[in-house]
Formats: sequence, C-alpha cells, structure tokens
Amino acid sequence: MDHVRQITIVGTGLLGASCGLGLRAAGYNGRLVGLSRRPQTAQRAKELGCIDEAGTELAPHARLSQLVIIAIPLRRYEPVLQELAKADHDQLVITDVGSTKQHVCDQARQLLPAPARFVGSHPMAGSEQHGPDAARADLFNAKPCVTTPQPDTDPNALATVESLWTTLKMRLVQMSPQDHDRQVARISHLPHALASLLFELAAKHNSLPLASTGFRDTTRVASGDPTVWLDIFTTNRQAVIESLDAIDQHTAQFRRMLTDQDDDALLELLTRAKQDRDNWIKTLGPQKNS
Amino acid sequence: MDHVRQITIVGTGLLGASCGLGLRAAGYNGRLVGLSRRPQTAQRAKELGCIDEAGTELAPHARLSQLVIIAIPLRRYEPVLQELAKADHDQLVITDVGSTKQHVCDQARQLLPAPARFVGSHPMAGSEQHGPDAARADLFNAKPCVTTPQPDTDPNALATVESLWTTLKMRLVQMSPQDHDRQVARISHLPHALASLLFELAAKHNSLPLASTGFRDTTRVASGDPTVWLDIFTTNRQAVIESLDAIDQHTAQFRRMLTDQDDDALLELLTRAKQDRDNWIKTLGPQKNS
Repeated sequence: MDHVRQITIVGTGLLGASCGLGLRAAGYNGRLVGLSRRPQTAQRAKELGCIDEAGTELAPHARLSQLVIIAIPLRRYEPVLQELAKADHDQLVITDVGSTKQHVCDQARQLLPAPARFVGSHPMAGSEQHGPDAARADLFNAKPCVTTPQPDTDPNALATVESLWTTLKMRLVQMSPQDHDRQVARISHLPHALASLLFELAAKHNSLPLASTGFRDTTRVASGDPTVWLDIFTTNRQAVIESLDAIDQHTAQFRRMLTDQDDDALLELLTRAKQDRDNWIKTLGPQKNS
Repeated sequence: MDHVRQITIVGTGLLGASCGLGLRAAGYNGRLVGLSRRPQTAQRAKELGCIDEAGTELAPHARLSQLVIIAIPLRRYEPVLQELAKADHDQLVITDVGSTKQHVCDQARQLLPAPARFVGSHPMAGSEQHGPDAARADLFNAKPCVTTPQPDTDPNALATVESLWTTLKMRLVQMSPQDHDRQVARISHLPHALASLLFELAAKHNSLPLASTGFRDTTRVASGDPTVWLDIFTTNRQAVIESLDAIDQHTAQFRRMLTDQDDDALLELLTRAKQDRDNWIKTLGPQKNS
C-alpha cells in the first residue's frame, strides 16, 4: 500500500467508515477522503477519526487518489461508476464492498474505461447497526473477504486491493463473480428468503404465540434492512432462483421420506446434518460456538 | 394440587427432573417418585433433590399416585401406557410432556381404560442439554404450556394437570391436539426440516467457508438430537407435510417475483416480514430481544 498516497471512500456508513478506522489503526499513513450523499454523514465520520477529509464531489478526489473504495448500496453504483469514468487515470484502482459480484463486475466493464483496474470485493463483515457511529477498527478482523478478479484484471490492481484487505486483517478468498454469487445465494440469500417466508407463514396462521427462541434464531436474518435485501435479490436473481430450485428438490425428498414412512432415510438425514453442522461450528472458533 | 399426595415422574431427564425441582421450589409437599430405564439416572435425580424416591417399576408407584407425568421420548410411550392401564384407579390423572399431541392422545385413547383422565401437555421449555444434571427449578417459568383436552376429558383431571403447570409458573394455552400439531409444525418442525436441508445443501456444494453468524443462527436447530426429531417428524407426519406444501407455495411465489422482475412485490414482502418480526420480537421481553 506504499504507493497509495490517497484513498477515497465513497460512502461513509458502517463499512466505509470502518475501512477508514481500521486502516488508521493498522498504521496506514496516507490521506483518507470520505464522501457521502448527506454531508453530515461524512462530517460525522471525520469527527470520529475515520477519515481526514469529508467531501462531496467524487471526480476531483478520484483524480488525486490511487484507490477508490465504493461502499454504498448496490442500487446507487451506476452514477458513481459514471463519475469515476470521467476521472479515470492510469494509477487509479477501484474496488467495492457489495454483497453480489456478477452484476457489479458487469457494470464496471460496461461503464469504466479501464475495467482491468476494477477488482470486485466482498468483505464478509457487518452488523445490524448502521452509519459511521457504528464503525469499528476491528470490524473486518479475521473475517473472509472474497475478491473476484477476472482473466483480464491488472495484477497490480489486484495486489493493491488484496493488500487493502490484508491490512484490515481479512482472510482472502479468490473466486469468479459467478461462483461467489452462487455460494452466497446458498449460505445467505436463500436462507434469508426462507426466513422471511417462514415468518410470514407463521404470522398468517397465528402460530406465533407458541414460537420461542428456536424460531427467533431461525428467522433472525429476516429483520435485515428490506432495501438492502431488495438490492441483493435483484442483482443475484439467477443464482437465487437456482438455489430455490435446489432446496425445492430437497424438500420434495424430505416429503417423500415422510409419506413413504422411510424413517431410516429420515434419521440418516437428520444425523448427517447434525454431524456436519457440529463439525462446522468447531471451525468457527470459541466465540461463535453454538 | 392439595389432593395430589404422590406424583410419579416417568423419565428423570431434563424435563422430568426439572418438574420435580420446580415443584419442590414452589412449595409442593407431596411425595415425588422418579423412574428411569437406567437406575443411575433416577438415582442421580434423587441426589440432586429433584425427587424423593428413585424407582424402576411403574405399576406399584402409579397405584399410590394421583398424578403421573410421562417425560420420556415419544417412541417409548406405548409400554408405559400399557403398564399404566394395569395400574389404573379412579383417582389417577396422567399427563405427558411430548412435543406432538395427536399421536399421543390417540395412543392414550387406545391403550388406557379411562382416557378421560389422560390430558396431553406440551410444556414449551427445553435446553440443548440433557439429563438430571441440567435440570433447573425455573426451566418452565413464564413459558407457554399447551394442554389438549378433548370433549370427553374429565374436568377434574384437566384441573389437576393445569394446576401442575401453573405451579411451575407456566402460561396455559388450550387447544385441540390437531391444532397444536399444526401450529408447532409451522413454528418448529418445518423450520427444523429447512435448517437441516439448508445445511446439507451448503455442505454438499462446499459453500461453508463463506458462511458466518447469520447462517449459524438460521441453522442452529439442526444440531438438535436426531432421534428426538425423528420421533417428532414420525408422530406428526400429516401436519409437517401440510406445512411443507404451504412453504412450497410461498417459495414458488417468491421465485415468480424474481423471474417476473416484480420488485415492488418483493420489497413489500421483505418489508412486511421485517415489520412483523420486529413487532413479535418486542413481545418476547428484554432478554430475548434480538
């Protein structure tokens, strides 16, 4: 990161502001500029020490930066990429923190003059809280970060982006945008859809008075921000549809075990799921062990 | 509970032993007998003060009891009900703590000479832990307890059983065995099936390295005891099948929103689920608020 003398963070919410705080805590001594739609948000991030300067105009800051981190909702990427296209220079590397990657990489390829210097990232960290006041220097610590370089990605751009995330102590995972989107559909987007649907099924039939901690945990993710999740589902339609079809096959199989009274198969499934999950939980480390 | 001079608890695991401890803590001063398949389990419950006497033979103790609480896995009810049939007397009230009720009520009607004195119960309390060492006097405190009286249930038997659970400070809910089984299918059995299937889908496709706390919580229940859950699914086949069909319709609708690009309907669904869940969470009280 030595050649990166200025970083512009587009969006100073939880993730953007935590990037700034974390970089500072890790000893990064370049300049940190933060931009936000609402001036008071970037101002607050500056007061909290997340950035050195709160700005509003992207192009002038991008011209002076070697790295731009896009940390805004997916539905607001397009004008930002258009603005970056105007300010592009051959030392500029661009990354983002969006939860889906194929759509974003396609947009970058379409809108940027040098898509080889765009590297999609998905730092898998977050919190139920929002805004710069929720920022933490250690938010990304030890969490996985997926980067999605493509065959034509500039190796120097990739090195800069990976160095950003390792400075924030993340565990790097490389995969194609398609693979990323399929994986997160299975472990995040499909579970979110089912949690919302399970909750509405129970609510519709007035079954909630009997629900307790198990149901609370199963459906916790359904309390996530609906606009964030709309962005995720609409930028990952195909992979979510595939995962819905996959779980449909599994529920049909489960249903057949019940109708056919195939109790051996049912016990085998329940036992395997428990064992696989118990083994996985051990890999999460002591704090997350339950 | 004044006329109940002796209670026999069949099964001194977590639930049975907690009944004993809780009754004693609430000032019940009748005799508490606990039975277990493995003599050391009842012996341990006695050492812990959950019961006064550890026994093995059911019939002699049932003859001297006014209340029998069946607190063993569902698959082992049949011989216990047959034994109770031999020891029946007109002051004997029988209840249980099983997680499904139609199957149990049918068994009682078939096997007991006076099914009117059997009242099915489902105290909705538990823990991931097992055995008398995990017992707590306050396990049932403030939790819902469903009783499933039938049209021919003896009102005195119902009063005795309800008095047992209110002594343990439970919130009583009355419903038919069928209604109970449909409700718990929606808020517990279906979510359990989906958690197991989601986990196996992610494991099969090697998606677990990207999974984190959201997926951990969504699938937590899949780590439950497989034999306990086999009992639940096999004694509640019809209601679970109905709930699988219901969620199938909902996932098909969700899939259509994605393929038809009906983003307004998608946002409405996500918003409604979040609002309904946030409202429900408020009803759970401060400790369970998340």
